[in-house]
Amino acid sequence: MAKRKNDLRTLRDALRRFADERDWDQFHSPRNLAASISIEAAELLECFQWQPEAKRVERVREEMADVLLYLIRLADKLDVDLVEAAERKLELNAKKYPVHKARGKSSKYTDL
Amino acid sequence: MAKRKNDLRTLRDALRRFADERDWDQFHSPRNLAASISIEAAELLECFQWQPEAKRVERVREEMADVLLYLIRLADKLDVDLVEAAERKLELNAKKYPVHKARGKSSKYTDL
Amino acid sequence: MAKRKNDLRTLRDALRRFADERDWDQFHSPRNLAASISIEAAELLECFQWQPEAKRVERVREEMADVLLYLIRLADKLDVDLVEAAERKLELNAKKYPVHKARGKSSKYTDL
Amino acid sequence: MAKRKNDLRTLRDALRRFADERDWDQFHSPRNLAASISIEAAELLECFQWQPEAKRVERVREEMADVLLYLIRLADKLDVDLVEAAERKLELNAKKYPVHKARGKSSKYTDL
Repeated sequence: MAKRKNDLRTLRDALRRFADERDWDQFHSPRNLAASISIEAAELLECFQWQPEAKRVERVREEMADVLLYLIRLADKLDVDLVEAAERKLELNAKKYPVHKARGKSSKYTDL
Repeated sequence: MAKRKNDLRTLRDALRRFADERDWDQFHSPRNLAASISIEAAELLECFQWQPEAKRVERVREEMADVLLYLIRLADKLDVDLVEAAERKLELNAKKYPVHKARGKSSKYTDL
Repeated sequence: MAKRKNDLRTLRDALRRFADERDWDQFHSPRNLAASISIEAAELLECFQWQPEAKRVERVREEMADVLLYLIRLADKLDVDLVEAAERKLELNAKKYPVHKARGKSSKYTDL
Repeated sequence: MAKRKNDLRTLRDALRRFADERDWDQFHSPRNLAASISIEAAELLECFQWQPEAKRVERVREEMADVLLYLIRLADKLDVDLVEAAERKLELNAKKYPVHKARGKSSKYTDL
C-alpha cells in the first residue's frame, strides 16, 4: 500500500462530502450500510465462485473497494475507530488461537 | 480515527505475522478470504436485524473489525492497494451518480 | 424427501400461525425477510468455511431449515409461488446453459 | 401455491438431470452450493436495498428461485429432507419463542 497519511480518515471525509452533496445522509442508517456491506461482500465472493482465480481483477478490486467504502461510512456513523477496532480484534484472536494450539489447523477456536 | 501513519500497512504486516506463526497461509486462498468477508459481513448485519439500534456496540465493533481484517488480508494476497482502489471507486461513483441527478434519491444509477 | 402433499403450503400456513400468535407480522416486511434469508445463508456457509465436511450435521440442517422458512414466508408476503418460480428459473437456466456449450465447464454463461 | 404432489422432490430430480447432462456434479460440493445460496440470497436482498418495494418483481422471483434451487440441490447432496428439517426447526423456534414471552417483540430469544 502506498505511503499516505491517515488514508482512512481522508476516505471518510470524501464519503461525507459525497453523501452530503447528494443529500444521501437520510439513506445511510447503520442498518442500511450494514446491508450494503453484506451485499457487496457477496458480489466479491461471486467473483471467486466458479473459478479458482478471478478472471476479472478489475471487478474484484471494485467489489473490495465497495466493501471498504461502506465499512468506513458505517464506522463514521457509529463513531468507531476502524483501525483501533481491528487492532483489538487481532489481540483477541491471538488469545483465541494461541500458536501452540492453532498451528496448521483451520478449526474454529471452539474446536481446538 | 486516530492519527497514525500507514495504518492499513501496519495491520497487513500484523496479519502476515499472525498467519505465518500459525502456518495458516495454506488456508488463505482468495476464495476462502472472500467467503470469510461475506460471513463476517452477515454477522455484522445480524446485529441490526431486529432492532434499529444495535444494542451490543462491542459486538458491532468486532464484526466490523473482522470484515476489515479479512479484507486487508485478501488485498495483501491479491496485491491490491485498498486505499487506491477505494479512491478510484469513489471517482467512478461520482460519475455514475452525478449530483444533479442523484440528489435526494436512493435509486440505483441505472434507474436515475 | 418424504411423500407428503403440499409440503410448502403446509409450512406456509404453519409460519402464518406462528407469526400471528406472536404478533410478528409487523416485523415481516419483505426487506426484513430478505435480510434474514441472507443472514441465515451466511450461517449455513460458515458451517463449511474451514472444513471440507461440515462436522455438525445437525447445525447444517438447522441453517438450511432457517433459509427455507424465511423464503417461504417471503413468498407468502409477495404472493410468489415458489415452485412455479423455481420451475421457470430452471427453464431459463437451461437456455442460458445449453448442454453442448456448458458441458464440464463451470464458467458463467456470459463467458461460455 | 399450486396443488402439486411432491414438488420439492420433482425439482430435486430435475436438478439432478440438469447437473448430470452438463457434467456439473464435480462443481457441486456442499461448500460450493452453500456459497451459491449465500450469493443468491444477497442478490435477493439487493432488490430491496434502496427501495421499500422492489420494483422488479420478476427479478425478485428469480432470485428467490435461485435460492430455492441451490438449497434443494444441497439438500440432495447431504441427504437432508428439507421439509422435515423445516418442521423440526419450527418446533424448536416455538420453544425458543414462547407466545407469552415473544408476543409483539422482535428481540432475539437470548434477550427475551
